[in-house]
Formats: sequence, structure tokens, C-alpha cells
Amino acid sequence: MLKEAIYHRPKDNFAYAYDDKTLHIRLRTKKDDVKKVYLIYGDPYIWENGEWQTEKKEMRKSGSDDLFDYWFTAIIPPYRRLRYGFELHDENDMLIYTEKGFYDEAPKDDTAYYFCFPFLNKIDVFKAPEWVKDTVWYQIFPERFANGNEKLNPKGTLSWGSADPTPTSFFGGDFEGIIQHLDYLVELGINGIYFTPIFKAPSNHKYDTIDYFEIDPQFGDKQTFKRLVDLCHEKGIRVMLDAVFNHSGYYFAPFQDVLKNGEKSKYKDWFHIREFPLQTKPIPNYDTFAFVGEMPKLNTENPEVKKYLLDVATYWIREFDIDGWRLDVANEVDHQFWREFRQAVKAIKPDVYILGEIWHDSMPWLRGDQFDAVMNYPFTNGALRYFAKGEVKASQFANIITNVLHSYPNNVNEVAFNLLGSHDTPRILTICNGNKEKVKLMFLFQLSFTGTPCIYYGDEIGMTGGQDPGCRKCMIWDEDKQDRDLFAHVQKLISLRKTYKAFGNRGELRFIETNDETNHIAYTKTYEDETILFVLNNSNQELEWTLPLHLKGKLLTNLWTNEQFAADTNEIKTTLSPYGFLIYKVEKWK
Amino acid sequence: MLKEAIYHRPKDNFAYAYDDKTLHIRLRTKKDDVKKVYLIYGDPYIWENGEWQTEKKEMRKSGSDDLFDYWFTAIIPPYRRLRYGFELHDENDMLIYTEKGFYDEAPKDDTAYYFCFPFLNKIDVFKAPEWVKDTVWYQIFPERFANGNEKLNPKGTLSWGSADPTPTSFFGGDFEGIIQHLDYLVELGINGIYFTPIFKAPSNHKYDTIDYFEIDPQFGDKQTFKRLVDLCHEKGIRVMLDAVFNHSGYYFAPFQDVLKNGEKSKYKDWFHIREFPLQTKPIPNYDTFAFVGEMPKLNTENPEVKKYLLDVATYWIREFDIDGWRLDVANEVDHQFWREFRQAVKAIKPDVYILGEIWHDSMPWLRGDQFDAVMNYPFTNGALRYFAKGEVKASQFANIITNVLHSYPNNVNEVAFNLLGSHDTPRILTICNGNKEKVKLMFLFQLSFTGTPCIYYGDEIGMTGGQDPGCRKCMIWDEDKQDRDLFAHVQKLISLRKTYKAFGNRGELRFIETNDETNHIAYTKTYEDETILFVLNNSNQELEWTLPLHLKGKLLTNLWTNEQFAADTNEIKTTLSPYGFLIYKVEKWK
Repeated sequence: MLKEAIYHRPKDNFAYAYDDKTLHIRLRTKKDDVKKVYLIYGDPYIWENGEWQTEKKEMRKSGSDDLFDYWFTAIIPPYRRLRYGFELHDENDMLIYTEKGFYDEAPKDDTAYYFCFPFLNKIDVFKAPEWVKDTVWYQIFPERFANGNEKLNPKGTLSWGSADPTPTSFFGGDFEGIIQHLDYLVELGINGIYFTPIFKAPSNHKYDTIDYFEIDPQFGDKQTFKRLVDLCHEKGIRVMLDAVFNHSGYYFAPFQDVLKNGEKSKYKDWFHIREFPLQTKPIPNYDTFAFVGEMPKLNTENPEVKKYLLDVATYWIREFDIDGWRLDVANEVDHQFWREFRQAVKAIKPDVYILGEIWHDSMPWLRGDQFDAVMNYPFTNGALRYFAKGEVKASQFANIITNVLHSYPNNVNEVAFNLLGSHDTPRILTICNGNKEKVKLMFLFQLSFTGTPCIYYGDEIGMTGGQDPGCRKCMIWDEDKQDRDLFAHVQKLISLRKTYKAFGNRGELRFIETNDETNHIAYTKTYEDETILFVLNNSNQELEWTLPLHLKGKLLTNLWTNEQFAADTNEIKTTLSPYGFLIYKVEKWK
Repeated sequence: MLKEAIYHRPKDNFAYAYDDKTLHIRLRTKKDDVKKVYLIYGDPYIWENGEWQTEKKEMRKSGSDDLFDYWFTAIIPPYRRLRYGFELHDENDMLIYTEKGFYDEAPKDDTAYYFCFPFLNKIDVFKAPEWVKDTVWYQIFPERFANGNEKLNPKGTLSWGSADPTPTSFFGGDFEGIIQHLDYLVELGINGIYFTPIFKAPSNHKYDTIDYFEIDPQFGDKQTFKRLVDLCHEKGIRVMLDAVFNHSGYYFAPFQDVLKNGEKSKYKDWFHIREFPLQTKPIPNYDTFAFVGEMPKLNTENPEVKKYLLDVATYWIREFDIDGWRLDVANEVDHQFWREFRQAVKAIKPDVYILGEIWHDSMPWLRGDQFDAVMNYPFTNGALRYFAKGEVKASQFANIITNVLHSYPNNVNEVAFNLLGSHDTPRILTICNGNKEKVKLMFLFQLSFTGTPCIYYGDEIGMTGGQDPGCRKCMIWDEDKQDRDLFAHVQKLISLRKTYKAFGNRGELRFIETNDETNHIAYTKTYEDETILFVLNNSNQELEWTLPLHLKGKLLTNLWTNEQFAADTNEIKTTLSPYGFLIYKVEKWK
């Protein structure tokens, strides 16, 4: 067994409290190198006759990626304390792996050899709001969703959909427009809206805040926003706003004060200024988002700034009852700020959702003290590369997805924000070169995946567009111009996700087959006794597919057609059309 | 190159802010597998012609253990942001390692492939008090250090040193006794005292607190304690107390109230009670330290308990100006409590030292938001196994120590609390079977090691004793019975540590030779231009040792004898006696 490949370190994604009683333990080994793994474990304080008392439990392989196998087990330590090691077997050998290294035999004279989960303290358990697990999000870019009140149109507003957007164009989208189309969203079946910024800001995207306590007048006033939130809540839809706390806009009053008064400004420590007077060329002499002088980075270590921003965060919850905050450029803000942010918002609304925008590996923000989730771009990239771009084949896709799932604890995965596209990426239909069947497969994968999926407005009706500003076109409301077939596809998937626990978030995903020649994948989602089998034919060729043998005699339901049948032979063959799929519910899959 | 062995994950010990400007980046590879490693890095927002702009810097091998080599480099990103990957070379091949996996060529079309240290926010930097780096601690078990006021003797106090201690014996050690012997500590050269608990408690060890706001009367009163702290400060000695916050004692008033009033007690949520009425047999039906019914675990998630304990923590700092808290059973208390603890104590004394008692891998407590250090038992075990017990040979010892150093960031290592023994372990001379020369070597290693060393009272004069209670004998004050030669040895080491920066904490340690046949080790400590070379002959045989060739022409100073000479040939041989050592200061070692 390859010792160099074997990895475990508590806590993070390898040993964590799943809930108030249960620990999850994972181990990594070289792919196809180890046959069996047992967890050796015990309470650190239970000894008999000078020997530490341990038990043994077989771990199961929970997945594999390019290089590694991952092993998993759950354990409920009666006194909430655990010392543990691993017993690994291949055909010939046995190996004990502990914090202190490798042994031929499990040492019992001291617990100090072993890994330690010292105590399962409830307050440290990662806990995201329960409702998030059952939420299907819909992302709205308010300037482009619907223009419901033309009186609010900013100067130079273009007529709805009359042109492709530029970085500076306005089309007059507003709250009234959203309110008028809430029934459309109910029809689609979503139950959460993520709004990109709505606070006062000069641009059409509003990421350059002037005033965090004011609604941008082009969208409406606070009364209208309150009405929008209330209507959403009536319809069972949660509301999440975008908190741009990494940087302010250029016209944010404190920054204007610094521009004007320089070192004498009482706001000079609200930003990270390297020298006075401020200048933006050739690059800003103050910290900014990227090198954008119009987006000065806020000094979130300054208690005044902290107080201001935490007041903002609690204000919109308290006064408007919003349900979540999406945190823009969350990775560049200090951890200490986010810890205090969490304390502040959860104190007034314990089940508020905190979602960070982080594009890379995000474990340091997902330890229970900061965010509930991050935008799962590693998922996005995997899905785009396999379904949309054809850059990776089936097996590599399964590897990527398995790797993503094993990079975080399960309770983190269950609320991960899984998007296929956003206002920051080209439209999925465009990436798919207009191949709608690919888009359908992607939606199927997204909506059957662990986590909380988000649909970017208009993707469900086949809107197109490249990188920003192309992906920010006006929502199409003329039904004749909407792809209603795609809409119905997404609608049905959402409905299935809501109906079957195994389909949605509660189900545990396992790849059961990947084939790089045909480029198809098959996976199961299992929750308690319910298993759903998915086969996705990501190819322009027909796929002849044989059901796994062990289904014989079991009752199968095709969830797409509602046909039921019992698998009565060992060889049920089925044919999938190009980019076709199968969704079978199977009773008591084993 | 063995891909399975290659490991990096930000942040923790692999990528961390060393100070407000500097990032440290480490990489792990299979031992002796990779010849050269370069860091490929850049600001995430600097692009030219559609290509991300990167630089390249060679990393150096910072050490090796059993299975792995470790590579290191420090980098100061001008805008405090970094994306990075690694370019690895062996004789034939080149490999790029990124967050997204391995590549043949460094991709430049997207930064998303790369590892990310998104922003160096000062507030998140791990910062321990500067003074700790120059501190040599001395651990006092107050009941056994000196009896200076017989009027305070508890009932049944035995005459000083008249018997070996039992778990329940009292010898009357007190503050007055410590005050009377402060000059002894000054003579030894220590400049920090760690006191095991001094608060009101029935046992001789006082880990079973009755009242956290009261001094145990057997030690003296608050006035005397204040005098002790003030005298220490006058003599340049810092004072650290022991905070037993995981559990209280049985006679702690709130627990007595629960025992008496059961479910009706207003303190019932101060503990973790599984059922009423409370019982201690066969095992307690409430959470405890281990299964000790007399030590009920405190519910540190309860705001009342939290407030009480944080009041305790700040009280002794505010009123008595203590300099540090050692946290008993720190790993079993929740992280959230420790975060608030840190905020509370640093708010009133920013350079207070927070030291957790954790025996295992402690990264989750050392991320800058909780502790400044832990008791470095992995160091202890390594040193005992090599010097005292002879369980491992030279190379394995170097592996263990290198592994310990690479398990944490450098700024964490610089304040690690390195002990050879304590009130919880047998005396080092006893473990060495009375071989004083071994003890001398251990002290040399400890006092030349990175971190903040601690001497357990009496070890410096050759006291003996097995596991508790044997290791808690009365301090020997009769000079004729003290091992003054050992005392002088320790005294000289402390003095050298204080005199030469490279000798002490600022020096970076590198093993340059280990030999399992002769069982000797040679290592250097380097700080700026100063390098000190140590050779330790951990064997009962003489060692013929040849100075490394590249010393020719350099000025060497034997720091133990003060002899100076220039190495004028390539073959300077020197002979070390059994368990002997050499300490050479070398000008401009390269």
C-alpha cells in the first residue's frame, strides 16, 4: 500500500461533526490500492488492564477521483469524544495508520498515537439553515428582469430588449416588474430568489455602492421592496440580497470625503490608502477590487467600518425580513469580519443563509464560524467542461465531481450553492453552441445534485449571450420567443426534486458507471430506502444501455414517463437517444 | 514524480501569512523524488494580452521526514494577493501542480486553476506576543516548591521532603516560599513562571476548583500573590496561571447547587447533565473530565458560564497583571469559547500569552483566532524517545522533529511551548535511568530549539520521580543534595540562548547530519549572518567527527569553551566523549 498517498487530518473535510451526535470520518488512499479499511476507535478514557479499549468498524469507499480512493464512515461516540486510527488491508498486507505514523500492529499502550476528535461541542457544529436544503434558487439581475414602472427609468433608458446590452446601458428593470412576474417564478417552481445588488449605485450592476442603506431609485423605493419581499414570502419564496462589503463605490460618501480632505478626512482609515493624495493612475495608490479605482477596498478591520457594515447587514434583515446574504468577493475580506458578521446576523435571524462568493477551494470559510456555503464554481466548471464544452470525458467528470464532494464535509455539500451560470459567466446555451439537449442534461445533473441549485434568469427559456455584458440581456417575456419546451423540462426537474427526497438534497450521490467511449454516466441518489438511478447520454450517438443485473425483480418507476415495471430478467436493455437520459426510481436498491 | 505524495492546501501550515507583508508557502513531495521546485505566482488581477502574468521563484528544501520532503519559500506580494502553483522537476520531467490538478505546462488563460491566498488581511495574521520568543519558562507546582509560611499549612501537612508524595499528601508549599526563592530562579536565568492552579480547591494539585476568584488559602492571600507577581515583574519574570475551564471541581458552588436541587437548580445548564438525579456510579450520568465524577464538565456554550469564566480570565489580568493563561484540557472546550476568550483577554492586555494544553496535532486551535501556542508534546515525545529511552535512532528523531516543525506555520513554531516534562509525566532523569549526561543533551536540544522552552521545577538539579505522584516531590533546597553541575549546565545554556539570537528562537533549525550507527545528530541554527553548529553524540561511545568541508577559512567559536579558531584545513577532526556535544558559532555559514 502506498503510504505516501494515505492522508487524514482532523478536522475540516476528513473528520467533522455532521450533527450534534455524529462524527464523519474520511480517509484518502491511492486509487485501487487498498481493499478494505477499518476504523479503529474508542473513548480516550476507557482502559482495561493497562490497555486502551477500541472497537473496529469497516469503512466504505465513498468515491474515487483521478489519483485517490476515499473511505467513509459515520460514528456516534457515546461520550462525544473519539480517538481513532485506521486499519488498511490489501491482498497481502495490513497496515495501521495513526497520527504518529504507520505501524504493523495497533498500539494499545497509549492513546497518544491516535488521531483525536477531542469533544463534539454542539456550538462548533457546522449548521446551515434547514430550508436551504429544499430551496431551488433563481438569480435575478434586477436591471434586466422586467420593467414594471417606466416612471423610474434612468436617463437614457432603452426600450426593453431593443438592443444587446453594453457595459453602460440601462433598460429600466425594477421591483414592480419582478412583482408582476412572480407568478412566472411560482409556475417554474423555484422557491428562492438571489438578487444581485439593489442598493444605490451609479452602474447598471450596482456593485459600486453609494449608499448601503438606500434602494437604488431606478428599482423603486423601500415600500415597494418590502412589498416584493412580503409577496415572495406569501408565495413561499425566500429572498437573498447581495452584500458588497469588500469595496464600496467611488461615490460612497466616506470615500468622497477622503478624496476631498485627504489625510485630514475622518474617513481616511475606512480604506487602505498607501499614500496621499489619492490617485487612480497608473494604478490606484489605495487598495481596490482588482485595480479598479472606482471600487476602493473597505478596511473591514476598522471598528467604525465594521459597525457600519454590520448595521447594514442587520438593517435589511430586521426591517425587510430578507432571508440571506450573498457576500461579494468574500474571500478578500478578513475572516475576523465574517465571524462577527455571522454572530450579528444569526443573532437576529438564526436561519438566515450566508453565502460567500469564492471561486476556489473554500474550506477555511466553511468551518462553521463564518459562511453557510460558497458559490460552487468547481462544480460549475466540471459541469461546463463535460456537458457544454466537451473538454473532459465521463470518467474525468466523475473524478472532478467526486473530488469536489470530498473537499468539504457532507453538511457543507448539502447547502453548497450550485450554479451553472451567473451574471459573471457566458450563458450556458451559448457555451453549448446552441445545443439545447446539452443544456437539458446539465439542468438534470444540477437539479439532481447535492446542494442548493440556482438558475440564472432566462437560462430556463433558452436565452443566449457571451461573457458580460452579453449574459445580461433583457429577460424575454414574449412567450413565443421563450423556449417553452426547455422551460417545461426545468419545471419538471424542479418538481421531481421536490417530490422525491432521494432526487434532491437528501440523496447521497454515487457514480456507478462512467464510459469514456460512449461518454455516458450513470449515478444513483439514495435516501433511506429510496434510490433513484440516473443515466445521462452525453453524446450525439444513441446509447444501448443495460440495466445493472441486480435490479432483477425490483419495481422500477420511470420518473419522466411514470411508467412502472418490474425488472424480470437479468438483461433489460434500453436505448437512449443522443443526449437522452433515464431516471428510474428503484425500490430497495442494494 | 509521485503525484500521490504531492500535497498543498492553503491556508494552515502550507500557506500562511508570516507577518503583515510576508506569505510563507510550503509544498510536500515524496522523499528524494523531486530535484527542484519553483513557485509560479502572480497577482490575480495582472493580465497582459489575455495572459495571466506570473513570476517564478525557486523554493528550497526545508526538511525531510520518513516519507516526505518539504519545500519552502517566502514571498511579499505587493498588493497582498496571490495566486500560485508549483513547477516540479526531477532529472527527466517537469510537472505543474495547481489546485485543479497536474499539467504539463502552466496554464495562463485563467487564474482559476491556481491555488489562492486571496488577501493578506492583517487582523487574520497569527500573532503571538513578541516577549514569548525570548522567554525561558519554569514550571512551578506550588504545593511542592517551597514552604515559606508554616502558618498556612493545611491539616496533616508533612514536613518538607520527609516522604515521597502520595496523591493526597500535603507539604505546605506556598507563595511566600516562592518569593523567598526568586533569586534562585534569577540565578538560573529563567524569565517566565508557569504556575499550575492556585485557586481555591481541595486537592494538592488544585485542578478541582471550588472558587475561581479566590486564592487557595494554603498558598496565601491575594496580597501575597500580588506581591509575588510584582516581584517577578521587577526581576523581569513573566507570570502565567493555569485556567481550568473545561471542568470545575465537585465543590464548585454551582455544581453543589445542582447536586442539591437537581432539575430545579438555576445552575442545571451550567453542566452537561444527561439525567437527574445526578449519580457518579458506575460512571457519572453527566459529562466530566475523563470519567472523574469530581470534575464535572462546564457547559461553556451557556452564556452565563461563558460570562463567568471570561470574568475570571480578565479579573486576574486586570487586578494582578498576570502575563499568560495556560488552558487546561483546552481541546475539549468549544472553539467558539476560545475565540471569545482571546478577544476578551487581548482586549485588556494585548500581549498576554494564551497557551493551550493539547497533546495531539493542534492546527485547528492555532489559526490566529484562538491560542498563541500549545504544549508541544509531540516535541517532548520525540526528544524522550531519542535521548531518554533510546527507542528511535538519530535519523528517525530528525524525522519526527522535522515533521513537528512542518505541521505548523513558522510563527506558530516560534512560540510553541517546548517541555521535556511536567507534573503529568515522569521526571526526565528517571526516564533516563539516572543517566545525567543524557539529561544534559536533552536540555541542550530543548534550549537550542525553536519555540519557548519550559523547565519543570527541580529537573535542573537532577530531581527524580516516576509518573504522578512521583514527579511531584518537594523541591530540594539543600545545595549539597542539588546536582549543581547540572544546574550550571542548564544555566549556561539559558545564558547562551539569551546571548545569541541564532541559538534561541530566531534561529532556523536544519539537520545537516544524522547517523544511526553512531547515533549522533548535527544541526545548525541560523539567524541572519549568524550560524551555530550543534553536534550531539547520543551514545555511550566516543565519536570521531569531521567538520563539514566548507568551513575552511571561516572563524569558529566554541561557545562552550570560548575557544576561537579558523578552520584552516579541510579535515578538522574532533572527538566527542560519550554523550558529549559541540557548539560552534560559525561566521557566514553558507
